[in-house]
Amino acid sequence: MALIVQKYGGTSVGTIERIQAVAERVIATRDRGNQVVVVVSAMSGETNRLIGLANQIDKKLSTREMDVLVSTGEQVTIALLTMALHAKGADARSYTGAQIKMLTDNIHGKARIKDIECDNMQNDLAAGNIIIVAGFQGVDHDGNITTLGRGGSDTTAVAIAAALKAHECQIYTDVDGVYTTDPRVEPRARKLDRITFEEMLEMASLGSKVLQIRSVEFAGKYNVPLRVLSSFEEGEGIGTLITTEEDEMEQAVISGIAFNRDEAQLTISGVPDQPGIASQILGSITEANIEIDMIVQNVGEDGTTDFTFTVHRNDYPQAIELLENTGKKLGAKKVKGNDSIVKISIVGVGMRSHAGIASSMFAALAREGINILMISTSEIKISVVVDEKYLELGVRTLHSEFGLEQKTA
Amino acid sequence: MALIVQKYGGTSVGTIERIQAVAERVIATRDRGNQVVVVVSAMSGETNRLIGLANQIDKKLSTREMDVLVSTGEQVTIALLTMALHAKGADARSYTGAQIKMLTDNIHGKARIKDIECDNMQNDLAAGNIIIVAGFQGVDHDGNITTLGRGGSDTTAVAIAAALKAHECQIYTDVDGVYTTDPRVEPRARKLDRITFEEMLEMASLGSKVLQIRSVEFAGKYNVPLRVLSSFEEGEGIGTLITTEEDEMEQAVISGIAFNRDEAQLTISGVPDQPGIASQILGSITEANIEIDMIVQNVGEDGTTDFTFTVHRNDYPQAIELLENTGKKLGAKKVKGNDSIVKISIVGVGMRSHAGIASSMFAALAREGINILMISTSEIKISVVVDEKYLELGVRTLHSEFGLEQKTA
Repeated sequence: MALIVQKYGGTSVGTIERIQAVAERVIATRDRGNQVVVVVSAMSGETNRLIGLANQIDKKLSTREMDVLVSTGEQVTIALLTMALHAKGADARSYTGAQIKMLTDNIHGKARIKDIECDNMQNDLAAGNIIIVAGFQGVDHDGNITTLGRGGSDTTAVAIAAALKAHECQIYTDVDGVYTTDPRVEPRARKLDRITFEEMLEMASLGSKVLQIRSVEFAGKYNVPLRVLSSFEEGEGIGTLITTEEDEMEQAVISGIAFNRDEAQLTISGVPDQPGIASQILGSITEANIEIDMIVQNVGEDGTTDFTFTVHRNDYPQAIELLENTGKKLGAKKVKGNDSIVKISIVGVGMRSHAGIASSMFAALAREGINILMISTSEIKISVVVDEKYLELGVRTLHSEFGLEQKTA
Repeated sequence: MALIVQKYGGTSVGTIERIQAVAERVIATRDRGNQVVVVVSAMSGETNRLIGLANQIDKKLSTREMDVLVSTGEQVTIALLTMALHAKGADARSYTGAQIKMLTDNIHGKARIKDIECDNMQNDLAAGNIIIVAGFQGVDHDGNITTLGRGGSDTTAVAIAAALKAHECQIYTDVDGVYTTDPRVEPRARKLDRITFEEMLEMASLGSKVLQIRSVEFAGKYNVPLRVLSSFEEGEGIGTLITTEEDEMEQAVISGIAFNRDEAQLTISGVPDQPGIASQILGSITEANIEIDMIVQNVGEDGTTDFTFTVHRNDYPQAIELLENTGKKLGAKKVKGNDSIVKISIVGVGMRSHAGIASSMFAALAREGINILMISTSEIKISVVVDEKYLELGVRTLHSEFGLEQKTA
């Protein structure tokens, strides 16, 4: 008998009718011979309703009390889903985060899970119960209610799957899986049957926002097979399975094309090439809490260096002002910026064992006349910065170049 | 420094504005030099909203899950009130029933309190915090969420006051205290400054529904001074204090006039006067879960007896049918009933030490031509059943007879 952990988000449990539909799906999973633990979010709109009440009181609220308040949202859902299962004749029991002793640190609003007590759940499963757990919430060592931050229900599900050594953790969403790229940009984008944890992390952080990044990290760390699938489909083996690298996956060199529209590029050139120059250049930017994405440094011939980095487009005006001040202090030749650029990345574990991926990528872009403004590489990812007008053309060119529209795995 | 426990019901915390008003009242209590623990109900309407959601799923619901669901109502209020206190600069911390280990039995929906852990609350009070506790809820020995049943927040407040040995437990309501009788019936009804626990129990059970009867029992048992007062008044010593009998209270012979409109009377006459006849007569009634109020038995001369009792008017049709069947079995001479009667009671600890109260009562009613259909007495109460048309006249006559419009205590 396999143990399956399923997670349903706020939209999937947004009305009584949808909760009843989830109950049917859960029973169908059980009837296929599985033990089932279900993690749920608050009904869609409920968390915002609660925050709205709090905001009428004050804008600067105690995070401890905020957690007491918003954690009621998931508690309502677990009770209603358990009732819906009972109404359909299934044995089920609900648990709050406190009741399964989902122990976290005490950082209210963005707590991190430290431990889970599995005895209650294991006894209930053995007795034939379906278990319904409130996502997103835990307790600290002193019994204070904590929350994992928005979207934390994915992490709850993965943590429970890891603790119970589940066969699979299924995350139900409103998309039917992870795609080779955004279908709105490349209509020939194809749903992936499998992807590795590492690839998913690169895809997610680059803008394919299907899953909470922390839940993917967690799943990778504890090796919990993670499946993303749609609440509107039925069956086994559907969606996209995120798992460790396996032999059969090696055929796909590139798994997907990620992109990010909201980038801006800043360059400071002709600064002295000496130890510590990078931290002097970036110091004022990071002190202003501006997050830096790509960083590239070229060494020139005359003992000076050029330094280019990207930030979120919203932070561009402040960043360029700070960099101009830094440029004056350091005696830089020039400071310039560009806030109409995008980043396109190819991601794939296969590139580790295949030479020539980068040159194929650059050649394909060159054939379409797309000028590359910046390049950054990691072990399983190559990113380029191009003018924003080339976003769609660039994504489609690379999607085709690496044969992503064809099923390879 | 005195410790005050205050309880605010759903209407008092029904909107953010009202929660802010409660916060101000709590701070005013603290600023008069008191430590304060506040017990709150769910915002008015919230419990019904949650039950409405559940009823969309099924009519026959798990009481365990119902408790998980409805207990979120108070949890929302504790967070919001604590935030409102913070916004006004007061130190405060919220606790759910589980967090203060309000241990109950496992009868979901109408659990009874067994124990409270006071360490957290005492430490918080010592550190200068105001403590906000969710009323109406607890946990059983296995950590399941329980509720005390509707109105149970009063009981929570009294139980905490008892456990912490509070100076006073204040129950805020929409009335400004306990009256000598219902002012809608007798406009000259006067608010009582003090009343004993015993008198309050008789008043409450007879229809003056100001407080949960269980909370009064609890307060009496643990000798917790209980004050009923209005959310719309300010100050110390207002409302009505419910406490043990004291010397200064002895002057008032009768404290109040209670009445109950919803009674019906049933009589079975001419049944054999033999042991066990009462249980034979009432057996079928109680088996049908019909609650019996007053019971009077008269012994006749011919070895038969007449037996009269009252039930709630809603139960009358079923009760009379059952009694007619019993009458046939027992060979009773007659079975008759009357569903247009009311009960009027005078209540007062003073009648213990004053002779002639009953005859004063009967004489006063006789002067107004009010025929008494049934009489029942206890140590601190005399009840009569009269035709419902005499309700107002009877109450006003007795109110005047015992001088209740004058302040005596």
